[in-house]
Amino acid sequence: MSSRGAPRLGIVGAGQLARMTYRAAISLGLTVRLLAHKPDESAARVGADVALGNPKSATDLAGFAAGCDVVTFDHELVAADALAALERTGAVLRPSAAVVAVAQNKRRQRERLAAIGAPIPAFQPILAADEVRRFAAAHGWPVVLKAAQGGYDGRGVWVADDAAAAAAVLAEAARRGLPMLVEAFVPIERELAVLVARRPRGDAVVYPLVETVQRDGICHEIVAPAPVAPALACEARDLARRIAEALDATGILAVELFLSGGRLLVNELAARPHNSGHYSIEGCLTSQFENHVRAALDWPLGAPDLAFPAVATANVLGDPSGADPLAHLPRTLALPDVHVHLYGKAARPGRKLGHVTVTGTDAAAVRERARQAARLLASGSVEAMA
Amino acid sequence: MSSRGAPRLGIVGAGQLARMTYRAAISLGLTVRLLAHKPDESAARVGADVALGNPKSATDLAGFAAGCDVVTFDHELVAADALAALERTGAVLRPSAAVVAVAQNKRRQRERLAAIGAPIPAFQPILAADEVRRFAAAHGWPVVLKAAQGGYDGRGVWVADDAAAAAAVLAEAARRGLPMLVEAFVPIERELAVLVARRPRGDAVVYPLVETVQRDGICHEIVAPAPVAPALACEARDLARRIAEALDATGILAVELFLSGGRLLVNELAARPHNSGHYSIEGCLTSQFENHVRAALDWPLGAPDLAFPAVATANVLGDPSGADPLAHLPRTLALPDVHVHLYGKAARPGRKLGHVTVTGTDAAAVRERARQAARLLASGSVEAMA
Repeated sequence: MSSRGAPRLGIVGAGQLARMTYRAAISLGLTVRLLAHKPDESAARVGADVALGNPKSATDLAGFAAGCDVVTFDHELVAADALAALERTGAVLRPSAAVVAVAQNKRRQRERLAAIGAPIPAFQPILAADEVRRFAAAHGWPVVLKAAQGGYDGRGVWVADDAAAAAAVLAEAARRGLPMLVEAFVPIERELAVLVARRPRGDAVVYPLVETVQRDGICHEIVAPAPVAPALACEARDLARRIAEALDATGILAVELFLSGGRLLVNELAARPHNSGHYSIEGCLTSQFENHVRAALDWPLGAPDLAFPAVATANVLGDPSGADPLAHLPRTLALPDVHVHLYGKAARPGRKLGHVTVTGTDAAAVRERARQAARLLASGSVEAMA
Repeated sequence: MSSRGAPRLGIVGAGQLARMTYRAAISLGLTVRLLAHKPDESAARVGADVALGNPKSATDLAGFAAGCDVVTFDHELVAADALAALERTGAVLRPSAAVVAVAQNKRRQRERLAAIGAPIPAFQPILAADEVRRFAAAHGWPVVLKAAQGGYDGRGVWVADDAAAAAAVLAEAARRGLPMLVEAFVPIERELAVLVARRPRGDAVVYPLVETVQRDGICHEIVAPAPVAPALACEARDLARRIAEALDATGILAVELFLSGGRLLVNELAARPHNSGHYSIEGCLTSQFENHVRAALDWPLGAPDLAFPAVATANVLGDPSGADPLAHLPRTLALPDVHVHLYGKAARPGRKLGHVTVTGTDAAAVRERARQAARLLASGSVEAMA
């Protein structure tokens, strides 16, 4: 039950991003409404106002939106055409249906980024089987093959070393009906990310540039600030702001970047709070979650600055043993100065179950502490796996 | 719905303290169960697992406790004998029924504090009408008359300048059936507070000494750290720790103090998260709410240290106009570096509706900013009332 007079903000999706957004909104006096697919989803476990429905169903989206003044999202796996239809009936979506449509499709992302003039790897939609071969002739092997839609956390991305490998991927993609694109393989020195929070009226704040340490396409660590030259950080933040403006994004826009050959290239966009911003809960003056709410409601944004010289976040991924991090929580809390976030999800190997943030002054020390804590939560041991 | 395997923590009470505790518990992977008297209470508006019941009813308390592994509290207006009976049936209460019984009764507080050897004002239970006169003959006029039970936020406390005034208060108290005590009036230089978080096994952490700026018995501001000599802060924190140990308190114990004639005197105790600790959400490495949960579950406690050199919190009290602070929230968020907490309560003049915390390096600057923001939220104007 929200307060009388409080704007009724709804989130499509009830995963951990919605859970952390819900938590941030409590402070602002709000009870956020959630559209959950299942009642045991991360945010649905803690929310007071949960509607059950399928985010790919136009009917369920319309029913949900009817009970909200403003609708936002914790994922992009929604029916974008249904969103556009909702907007035509007067529903207020932040981000807009057009921005969700871009965020949910890697081909559209690339085409928009190219139109904006943002630096991106060479790419091409794959419309015919021999296009990969011709693309590789121009850009060299290996190439990166991507499903245009539906991939996340490394799923839907393949590196093909030669024509035979590419053909195998494309055959499987065709069998599953996945539209694909091909991109030049770029050597990656670092993966970086910038969050922008932007209001409908155009005001925006830009978070610090962070490094995201990925393994197998899954973010394992966030290092804030990114250990790069100030000029590069400045360039990255300007680029992110420019993209948010060009898209007319509202709420959080996450811009994932590669540092390759000393140059920035945009990898992907997400039009919602993002794993790369979890460090902001304790690490910044205003968290990405609070600013997502403020931006969605067109309220003034909070300062995104780091509150500490060094902040590190490590994700807690489900252990191969299937152990529940809750079992290791008390021992983890015994580590000094560790901020634990568990998402209330059933433990499964490799699943994102929580994260740990450590703030301080020494980048190496906070990073090592965050890693230790995440390992302890996941596995019950601080030792790295062999 | 809590996670499988998660301890089932319940809070008796669903006010703003429960709301902020609920929020803190989300990060720890928990869905805290709430016992609300009414469905529109502050925490009940945001909680996923809310039981309705009367905290003064033994039946309702027993039914609630049956669904919890550990029960804690956000207020002390509960049936203490019912709690003691619950403990005898095996319910785990933190704090214990004995500590709640002390916290809810000012006479028992005074007697326990005297037994511990804690410095307190001279006091005496009022058993006969002429006892106030004899007490004043020994300690001087004015005297302070207090209801032993049920008072808060300045209610239940009267200063009587002479025998006639005292007689009037006592007549009214007798009419309402209130047991009373009389205390020496002490000149107050400052009001101070210390929070202790203590686990059942005895580990405790002690928060910084803060100044609480009260008007009409209601806390308006919290200044952290308190602007007093380090030796005095040390003494206050030692005293608070000693009281928590002597009572065998678990969870947060708030110790409110007077600074009078350069000496510390204990004013009151509260065995729960406390208004004087709201600054800790952003101001400390671990908030009082998170440490209350950790202590109640006998988990290792987090560091209570200040994360910033200067922190100030100002309470948002309902404006005489009856205005809802939500109406002024967007403008308040435009003030830089202000952390807003609204409790989702219906606006009424004088009611605690929220608070604002500002962190920084300059004590005067953060305090002025917090005051401005609280005034703006409450009244729509940053100007102080005439």
